[in-house]
Amino acid sequence: MEPVNVFDYEALAQARVESAAWDFYQGGSDDEVTLRANRSTFERIRLRPRVLVDVTTCDTRTTVLGTSVNMPILVAPTAMHCLAHPEGECATAQGAGRAGTLMVASTVSSRTMEDIAQAASGPLWFQLYVYGGMRTSERMVRRAQAAGYRAIVLTVDLPRMGNRERDIRNNFNLPSHLREANFAGEEMLEIRKEAFTLTWDSLAWLRSVTSLPILVKGILTAEDAELAVQHGVDGIIVSNHGGRQLDTVLASIEALPEIVDAVSGRCEVYMDGGIRRGTDILKALALGARAVLVGRPILWGLAANGTEGVYHVLEILRRELELSMALAGRPTLTSIDRSLVKSV
Amino acid sequence: MEPVNVFDYEALAQARVESAAWDFYQGGSDDEVTLRANRSTFERIRLRPRVLVDVTTCDTRTTVLGTSVNMPILVAPTAMHCLAHPEGECATAQGAGRAGTLMVASTVSSRTMEDIAQAASGPLWFQLYVYGGMRTSERMVRRAQAAGYRAIVLTVDLPRMGNRERDIRNNFNLPSHLREANFAGEEMLEIRKEAFTLTWDSLAWLRSVTSLPILVKGILTAEDAELAVQHGVDGIIVSNHGGRQLDTVLASIEALPEIVDAVSGRCEVYMDGGIRRGTDILKALALGARAVLVGRPILWGLAANGTEGVYHVLEILRRELELSMALAGRPTLTSIDRSLVKSV
Amino acid sequence: MEPVNVFDYEALAQARVESAAWDFYQGGSDDEVTLRANRSTFERIRLRPRVLVDVTTCDTRTTVLGTSVNMPILVAPTAMHCLAHPEGECATAQGAGRAGTLMVASTVSSRTMEDIAQAASGPLWFQLYVYGGMRTSERMVRRAQAAGYRAIVLTVDLPRMGNRERDIRNNFNLPSHLREANFAGEEMLEIRKEAFTLTWDSLAWLRSVTSLPILVKGILTAEDAELAVQHGVDGIIVSNHGGRQLDTVLASIEALPEIVDAVSGRCEVYMDGGIRRGTDILKALALGARAVLVGRPILWGLAANGTEGVYHVLEILRRELELSMALAGRPTLTSIDRSLVKSV
Amino acid sequence: MEPVNVFDYEALAQARVESAAWDFYQGGSDDEVTLRANRSTFERIRLRPRVLVDVTTCDTRTTVLGTSVNMPILVAPTAMHCLAHPEGECATAQGAGRAGTLMVASTVSSRTMEDIAQAASGPLWFQLYVYGGMRTSERMVRRAQAAGYRAIVLTVDLPRMGNRERDIRNNFNLPSHLREANFAGEEMLEIRKEAFTLTWDSLAWLRSVTSLPILVKGILTAEDAELAVQHGVDGIIVSNHGGRQLDTVLASIEALPEIVDAVSGRCEVYMDGGIRRGTDILKALALGARAVLVGRPILWGLAANGTEGVYHVLEILRRELELSMALAGRPTLTSIDRSLVKSV
Repeated sequence: MEPVNVFDYEALAQARVESAAWDFYQGGSDDEVTLRANRSTFERIRLRPRVLVDVTTCDTRTTVLGTSVNMPILVAPTAMHCLAHPEGECATAQGAGRAGTLMVASTVSSRTMEDIAQAASGPLWFQLYVYGGMRTSERMVRRAQAAGYRAIVLTVDLPRMGNRERDIRNNFNLPSHLREANFAGEEMLEIRKEAFTLTWDSLAWLRSVTSLPILVKGILTAEDAELAVQHGVDGIIVSNHGGRQLDTVLASIEALPEIVDAVSGRCEVYMDGGIRRGTDILKALALGARAVLVGRPILWGLAANGTEGVYHVLEILRRELELSMALAGRPTLTSIDRSLVKSV
Repeated sequence: MEPVNVFDYEALAQARVESAAWDFYQGGSDDEVTLRANRSTFERIRLRPRVLVDVTTCDTRTTVLGTSVNMPILVAPTAMHCLAHPEGECATAQGAGRAGTLMVASTVSSRTMEDIAQAASGPLWFQLYVYGGMRTSERMVRRAQAAGYRAIVLTVDLPRMGNRERDIRNNFNLPSHLREANFAGEEMLEIRKEAFTLTWDSLAWLRSVTSLPILVKGILTAEDAELAVQHGVDGIIVSNHGGRQLDTVLASIEALPEIVDAVSGRCEVYMDGGIRRGTDILKALALGARAVLVGRPILWGLAANGTEGVYHVLEILRRELELSMALAGRPTLTSIDRSLVKSV
Repeated sequence: MEPVNVFDYEALAQARVESAAWDFYQGGSDDEVTLRANRSTFERIRLRPRVLVDVTTCDTRTTVLGTSVNMPILVAPTAMHCLAHPEGECATAQGAGRAGTLMVASTVSSRTMEDIAQAASGPLWFQLYVYGGMRTSERMVRRAQAAGYRAIVLTVDLPRMGNRERDIRNNFNLPSHLREANFAGEEMLEIRKEAFTLTWDSLAWLRSVTSLPILVKGILTAEDAELAVQHGVDGIIVSNHGGRQLDTVLASIEALPEIVDAVSGRCEVYMDGGIRRGTDILKALALGARAVLVGRPILWGLAANGTEGVYHVLEILRRELELSMALAGRPTLTSIDRSLVKSV
Repeated sequence: MEPVNVFDYEALAQARVESAAWDFYQGGSDDEVTLRANRSTFERIRLRPRVLVDVTTCDTRTTVLGTSVNMPILVAPTAMHCLAHPEGECATAQGAGRAGTLMVASTVSSRTMEDIAQAASGPLWFQLYVYGGMRTSERMVRRAQAAGYRAIVLTVDLPRMGNRERDIRNNFNLPSHLREANFAGEEMLEIRKEAFTLTWDSLAWLRSVTSLPILVKGILTAEDAELAVQHGVDGIIVSNHGGRQLDTVLASIEALPEIVDAVSGRCEVYMDGGIRRGTDILKALALGARAVLVGRPILWGLAANGTEGVYHVLEILRRELELSMALAGRPTLTSIDRSLVKSV
């Protein structure tokens, strides 16, 4: 039968993806404490639903940095979609566009950013890893802007690769013909071992090479959120990299409130990490996120059924969010506030 | 041997009810977090019993909106009793009456409200879903009043059906010959998909079509309790619809105290959700409920042994409550206050 | 090999005791929530040990209502020791005496109080249930005093028998030839079904029929502790009847601090419930208990090895306490205070 | 394949060590509550990582009482390494030296302190148990100083041996030819049964017989930390003896903050207990430890692969710490402070 929820897609995908690649997608770092906390923390947040509100129409549409989307649910940047499906990120982009939302394409995509842009029917942001030095990265950012990407998402939580033991045990390496898609003719550092260390000064450099809005992805503290705002970012993505970088850090949803408080409206705040249900999204919005990003479930949909699977995963989450809004008595995104949640 | 507690009835019932109908009765929405929380939260509330009080006689009798009942334990409205027993709600009503308590009959009963009223030996309230438009509902309310129902219980937490995945996977639909009992000659919307959105204004409409007392069922916040009082309701039933509507909402027993505080005696407050033991009832009373409503255990009794089973489930709970009152040193319902409980 | 701890005795005993009697000993009421909490709560209390204290000699000797004992560990009153061993309470009394501590004999012993007193080599208290009316009880109290019992322990948490479902399912009844030991020639109510309701006034009656010190057993709240002191009791035993009366009440160790605070030295405070390790005893003493009472482990020792088993169980606990005192840097009972514990 | 983390070494070691010796290494006292808490408590502490810090170089080097080490990770004193490997402590010392860190050799080593010193390529401290009386201990301390040990670590939490039931059940005794290595020609008490009780005055005695710095190991309270400072110790090791002494005491990492606060920089503070990951070390440093000591994982490395295994275990932990520092945005040890952690 048709998958009922995103967990159904997880089971379907596992049967289709080669096991080392599956571990690469699913795994976290060290003992995967944060990977589990990203999920379990949502259960400890209870909803306080309101009743007798007119919820005939619940509107999930919003804008993200001024771009209209059908839902506050974006496609998170994840690596190497060709491991899940031969069409890779091009299929993902089509699914996202069909669902009416935005995709963040990864630097380490298995299709070139230009191919993805051409295939895409919806808006795109470009996620930037600074592999290969600033010269290479500058050229990539300019290519992204030229190809129509609308913002640059600078990942700031990967000064080094996390200790992902599943990959080590599997001796898993990204196939070079896949990982070099965006690096044609560019030098590329060995991404498992070396990466350029970014600092807050890097934001001035990035600002100097593009007129696109800039988001930083991987903030988990109020202190860094304040610094990000001071450095003029347009958006912050609260993230622990899906539990794949430093293990035992805060779950994203735990970190979100202090960051929203610190930012106090000076830029948009997003979050990713552990979103599997409409109620998870509702809680993130209640705690101040403008939208959430979804990573692994998109890969599950892609592996299970290509573009159609990506579309359906997003549509499942959108329908669950829409139903949750109705049942919570919050028919508009602006009616969702902190009084909707209580920690237990 | 004779069932010792309501869990024994659960086991007996499961052996008798067709599996998809069983899932319909037992299931909750999404991941059933709230379904489990309705039970587990009771364990985290500890009793503080008093001793050397004269408990020779413990009196469980009370009134609910002025109607005398033998126990502060009412039959919650649940759908389609004919799935459990051929006599359906008529058998349930007889069991409730024999136990000396009140039954809330559901709009989506499998016997007509008039049949139930005729069979009943005890007091009845009528639970109202506004399916089929206000005209239909108005006629139903008038029929209920004519048939002797003593109050209207307006369910306010079902603007849409919750995401009950067991039913979806079972492709479970209420048999149409059962679900239309109260809708003879009326238009009826597809209840799995559509429902009339009620608002606070609906209370004025309901007030205008009946002189019966009105309760709202499905309140989980102090804010809505305040609004309910302001709109003149006679009673509030704190409920999360047995964990079947929005998943991860507060357990009913968690929500109860703030609602009791907000209401501050201006109307009666009831609760349902997870009641399986006399001590659960004692805790709900200690936290301010006038009475509790019991749903699934009634269906278990009905499935296992018809009228006799319903009676026995209620009698087990009453005896457990009565014993719990004695062992807690609270021989009267009025002697039960918040000093009896402590959260751990 | 020789049993190493009391849990070893539990395993040995289970192999020797008939299964329905075993359930009678081991079981609690309802869902046995409090039975489990009596144990698990100890784990959530952490010890804060002191070092570099001279612990060459750790002295576990104390007095209980003026009677010297080798250890702050008494034998709790439990029913029907002949179910565990043919010599019954006489063997238990010899074991307790050999260990140098005090035994509380139960009204519903399977040997007469006079037989027990004759067999005993250590001090005794008499636990009183008021079955059979005050006249009967008065005669029993006078017999106890005549036989040399040094105090009366009035159980106050059994106005009715708790809902012990294991016994109900086993259709377990105390053999009448056993349970009537103390009732020769007396009327006796059916103890499973009826019991005299005591009130605070009963203490004046009890005071009037004996010159012995009086303790009340079964207090779980500060409010009742205050009343007990006001009614002139000589001691309070904080107890939930081993989880056998009202389920989901506070664990004894949870209730202890508020009672010690309320009593504020005006009488001695004891506790029972869940004591299985020397560190449990240390925690109870740190929270203000003068001594603890041990129930089930004594029966395990008795069943496994008669007098010798009772002695060894007590000696294991004493040795564990003595070692714990040394390792906690508290060589005397008076050096044990609340700074030794921290709840987590 | 090569072990990826220290848990891999645990599995390798278990296959090589005789089962009673394994239990001796792995076991704790009583019910091993503290043994488990030493691990589980780390999971409840979440990291708050900072980003966009230059972490190109992360420096794990530090000094411990003025001695330079490559990492804030020392080898904890543990007994009888010959049970794990024929070369015993000599192999351990070589592994520690190769890793560039310090080893604390135990009084109850299976090789003499002089042999260990000769084999060692890195700095050593000598852990002192006062078995055999002060005369014997004085001679040992002088031998240690003469052999080049740089500090004396006085263990203060073993006035008696803890109740280690695995050893009792195994009837495990340290082979006398092993345990007497340091006691040649000296009287030696039966260490399983007797030990000299130390007091705070013992520190003056120890001070009088050596000019080496003195640390006390086994402090778990602020009160004792204050006393230690007042008695002029150079360092405190917060420890519960690996959960082998008094069961249910605080996990070391729980006790650390109050001790650091009490000491307030007046001496160095170390901790051991449950360190298995680089993030554990990071948390201990954040809570104020100057370095951690690692016990069982060293034995696992030794058993699995001798000197090379010890070296590799230390190197795994150092690399994990170094990576954790980078991912936490704390490239120097001095940049690690309490803002890095949050308890959940």
